Parts: sequence; structure tokens; C-alpha cells
Amino acid sequence: MSEITRVALDAMGGDYAPVEMVKGAVDAINKEQNVKIFLVGKEELVKSELAKYTYDQERIQVVNATEVIETAEPPVNAIRRKKDSSMVVGMKLVKNKEADAFVSAGSSGAVLVGGQTLVGRIKGVERPPLAPLIPTAKGVSLLIDCGANVDARPSHLVQFAKMGSIYMEHVIGIKEPKVAIVNIGAEEEKGNALVKETFPLLKNLTDINFTGSIEARDIPYGKADVIVSEAFAGNVILKLYEGLGAVLIGKIKEGMMSSLRSKIGALLVKPALKETVKEFDASEYGGAPLLGLRGLVVKTHGSAKAKEVSNSIIQCITFKEQKINEKIMECIQAEQSSDE
Amino acid sequence: MSEITRVALDAMGGDYAPVEMVKGAVDAINKEQNVKIFLVGKEELVKSELAKYTYDQERIQVVNATEVIETAEPPVNAIRRKKDSSMVVGMKLVKNKEADAFVSAGSSGAVLVGGQTLVGRIKGVERPPLAPLIPTAKGVSLLIDCGANVDARPSHLVQFAKMGSIYMEHVIGIKEPKVAIVNIGAEEEKGNALVKETFPLLKNLTDINFTGSIEARDIPYGKADVIVSEAFAGNVILKLYEGLGAVLIGKIKEGMMSSLRSKIGALLVKPALKETVKEFDASEYGGAPLLGLRGLVVKTHGSAKAKEVSNSIIQCITFKEQKINEKIMECIQAEQSSDE
Repeated sequence: MSEITRVALDAMGGDYAPVEMVKGAVDAINKEQNVKIFLVGKEELVKSELAKYTYDQERIQVVNATEVIETAEPPVNAIRRKKDSSMVVGMKLVKNKEADAFVSAGSSGAVLVGGQTLVGRIKGVERPPLAPLIPTAKGVSLLIDCGANVDARPSHLVQFAKMGSIYMEHVIGIKEPKVAIVNIGAEEEKGNALVKETFPLLKNLTDINFTGSIEARDIPYGKADVIVSEAFAGNVILKLYEGLGAVLIGKIKEGMMSSLRSKIGALLVKPALKETVKEFDASEYGGAPLLGLRGLVVKTHGSAKAKEVSNSIIQCITFKEQKINEKIMECIQAEQSSDE
Repeated sequence: MSEITRVALDAMGGDYAPVEMVKGAVDAINKEQNVKIFLVGKEELVKSELAKYTYDQERIQVVNATEVIETAEPPVNAIRRKKDSSMVVGMKLVKNKEADAFVSAGSSGAVLVGGQTLVGRIKGVERPPLAPLIPTAKGVSLLIDCGANVDARPSHLVQFAKMGSIYMEHVIGIKEPKVAIVNIGAEEEKGNALVKETFPLLKNLTDINFTGSIEARDIPYGKADVIVSEAFAGNVILKLYEGLGAVLIGKIKEGMMSSLRSKIGALLVKPALKETVKEFDASEYGGAPLLGLRGLVVKTHGSAKAKEVSNSIIQCITFKEQKINEKIMECIQAEQSSDE
């Protein structure tokens, strides 16, 4: 049997906390043997939720944290001041090596700030990127960075490409993942100053399968496995994916209700349509890892329910078993020794 | 009767030139009285296409141009060297005030370069933005800039906001259009350096209805009428709109073909679905104007067929009749006199 992965779960973060967080934790330990969960939050509240379930009590432990960081709070202040919040207490478990990973559906800003300041970066990693999986016609692609570091420099994007490649190969299982940089044209000479400067650096790398530029149009077709982007454009891609998907599906449903004929048709296509929508639902793929930290931090959607929470926890097991952080460390150290 | 709008149409640009260009020109003069078209391209070719139609010969004139700028050519060189190309000849008609507008489905790069160097900017306009209409749940929004000026400065974005507002109010007919800047969070303190610097400038404007930041997620819902963005992110939004729409609709169709039950349903919902897809089809809305030039230049999709071409031509009529360029001039001059 492989080693146990210990996951600290923010029981208080997200729109449906603590109910769905607790349910997700119970689901995860029922599905997977090699995991232990620390449910971090207001002890009484969490325990009374937990009391609804029967589960292996050895593998869920409640850790008390009396404060909660709200979504609207300025992240830096919140992390600094709320020392007994579920977020700070949970991240400290990772920092102190009592947990391998921390999962939260709470404030993105606080997760990013806490990840950097409390958990800390792997030596040599300049900026830890947030890297969600996004659905495509062929499966999933990793979008890196989607909001952690605006105004990034070329050297940051180069590290994103390397870390993203490791993640896709060893967590998702895609051999020699195709790595591309988001650009506004396919030709090498196109782009803004950042892309023009980064392109030749990526082209020179021998340890990743760099395939050149990708236009946003081609992202949903799955033409690359790792989509490298500066955080501003990456965030725009992620958010537009969510918004446009929802609006289009809404429009289609509305269109189907427009006549008796189409209403009958709608009843017949409903199951097939549901399956399609599910394939394009980001929550199927768990949360977004913040890569390059000394431990794993995963941000799930604010609207995450038990299924996404449980998927995010299970993702942490693969991350640990595949020794992703050790691989990132080796790769970044190789980069630095070649710089000398 | 109002004045005639004279449109120079690039008969050689785009995937379906000259066939669909000529058809689009004929359709446009059949639909609208107040327009005259110069069909610019290889005379023999264009004339033999025209011979297929009966139309008011007074209102379509063929202007010979022996060269064609290809999509793959580096734009600056192409515009400089191919002096007898349909693009250069057409734009010069606008420059010399023989035409009010130039419409092309050819190379975007060449349209942008030619627009700036041959037609020229309105005095005071720093950068002419490319501003397509994109479909939303409520109608359409103007996305400005979507590819003309990467690495723009705050003062450029401020002018985009003003020009976009004038366009939406007077060409599309939306009173006091809501203007928002693309950002990665709704709060004022969020964003990259460019957005943080631009935000207070937009907030101080009294001549537009600035509503703050817009996250990409909210764009498809139509939460703003004018979406101000730096060209790189704007281009990403436009291209992702196209790609994601096509992939989602493809997936849905595929899903419907997965069982006999859903196949029957698909037949019944087909007309309603087609209507929905049409609403989200950018070609319904004609081309993208390059704003701020001394004359109008419109870029249509490379894949434009007669309908989009004809819609783009008709768009030029409204542009002229509503005196958009005069309004832009006044607005930019007011800005400059207030700077003194």
C-alpha cells in the first residue's frame, strides 16, 4: 500500500460551506483508501455536520479554527490578521509538514497570498502560477497562469511552461504534452512585447514539447495540452469559458422552448445534452493547483459542491504519489545549474 | 433623400473573393438606395462575375487593380510594395475623398497598416482601434480594441472608450451606452498595471457612462455595451468567442446523434437551434470598423460571404449618415483643449 496523503480541507470556505465541504471529505475517504483529511474550521459546526455521516473516524480529524476569511476582505490583511482562520490554520498544517496539501473554496486572493507567504515557494520558483484544467473537444488542457501573477516577466512564463508540462504528464497522464503560448497570431513574429521575448526562450528549451503559438480560437479544440499565458489573459480565458458556456447553453435551452415542436424535441435530446454540458463543466475536473509551492495548495470554485471538493482531494493523492513537487524541484534546479 | 455613401469594396480579399464580394455588393445596392460601390480588383475577373447579375449599373463601378495582397504577406511590406493592389487602390480612394469607406475581407494586418498609413488618423487620435460587435444574451456589445494596438497605454484606452461610446450610441442606437474596462476582478484596486492606471482616468470622464470593471465571465451576458480592452486581451476574447461557440455547438450536435431517441429529438429542435446559433453568429453583424481614421475602414471576416459583405457595406451608410467621424473629431478636440 502506498503512503497516506494528508489533506487539510478549508471547511469554512465557499458558498456551500461547511455542508458541502464536509460531505466532500466523507465522499473522498469512502472512495480512496490512501487519504486522511483534516477538516479545518469552527469545531462545533463541523462536528455537527460530520455527525450526519458514518465514516472511518481514523481518517477525518477536525482541527478547530475560530475565524473565517470572507471573499470580500483584502487578502493581504486577512491572511496577516486572521491568524485563527480556517485558511491560515490549514496552510500552516502544510507549512509544518503535518499535511501534504490544502484545499479551499474560499477567497482566491487569500489562497494566493497565503500560499506564497505561509506555505512558501520551492527554492528557485519565481512565481507560483494558478493552473486550472479547462475542458476541450479532446479532453482537458492546463491553463497556466490564470490569475496569480499579473504583469509577469518572460522568465516566469518559462517556468510556467515547465511546471505545467510536468503536471500534465504525471498527474493527467499525457505523454510529452504539447506546450503552446497564447498569442494573437500563429506566426513567431506576432504578439505583444512579453510574448515576443518569451517565444525564443521557450523554443530553446529541450525538456518540454513546445509547439509554438496558440490563438485563443484553437484552445477549445484542444490543440495544446499546456496553455501558457500571462495571468491577465489567462484569467480572461478562464472566465470567458465559464460565461460563454453558460450563456450559450441557456440560449439553446430557451430556443428549444420556443415552439411545441421543439419542446417535444427538447425532452428527447435532454439526456444527451446533459452529458455534453457535463463534459464542458469545469467542476468535473477538481480544483486549480497553485504550483511551485513547498506543499500543494488547491483552489476550488467558490460554488464547489461535494463532488468538486472530493475530486480536488483525490487530485492531491495523485500529486503526492507522482512526486510532482520533487519533479518540479529537479527541473528548476537543473535550470539554475545550467545558468551558472 | 440623404446623401449617397460611396463604399470602396476590396473585390479580391477573403476566402470567397471575388464571387461573394461581387454578390454582396449587388445585394447591398438592391437593399439600399443611398449607396454607390467601387468594386476594386482585377477588372476582367470582377466584370465577368458582375455579368451574372442584373443591377443598377450607375451604382456599381469597377476600379481596376492588378495586384492582390495575400494573407501570409508581412503587412508593412505588402502595403508599401504592392501599389496596384486592390487594398492600396481602395484605401487611396478613401484618402482622396473619392470614397467614404473601404471594406475588405483580406489580410487583417494589411488593413490595419494601410488604414493608418494610407487613410491616416483623425488629428488627435493616438491609435485607431479595431472594434467588432460581439453577440451577447441581450444583443451586441462593442469590443474595442481587438487587435490593432498591442502594448497600448492608458491614454489610448481612454480614447477607445470615447470612440466606442460614440459608435454604440449613434450607429447601433443605444442611449448612454454602458462602458466598462476588462479586468480580472470587479473591484477598483484589481488588475494589471495598465488597468490600474486607466481606471481612474475613465472614472473621471464626464462624457461617457463608465460603469467600472467587467470580468470576462460577464461579457456574454451583455453587462456592458462598450468593452474597453488592450488589444492582446481583446483579441483573445474575440477569438475565444468564435472557437468556444463552434466547439460547444459541435459537441451538442454530436451529443444529439448519440442515440435514436436523441436523433429524433434533434430533428424536432433543429429549426430552433439554428435560430439560436444564428443569433450568436458574428457575421450577422457585419465587419469591424477601424475607428479614428479620416474615413471609414471596415475589416470583415476572411470567411465572409455575400451576406456579411452586404451587411458591412450597409453599416458604412449609417456611419456616414450619423456623422460618426465628425463626432469623434469634436470629442477628441474637446479632450485636447481641456488639456491645455
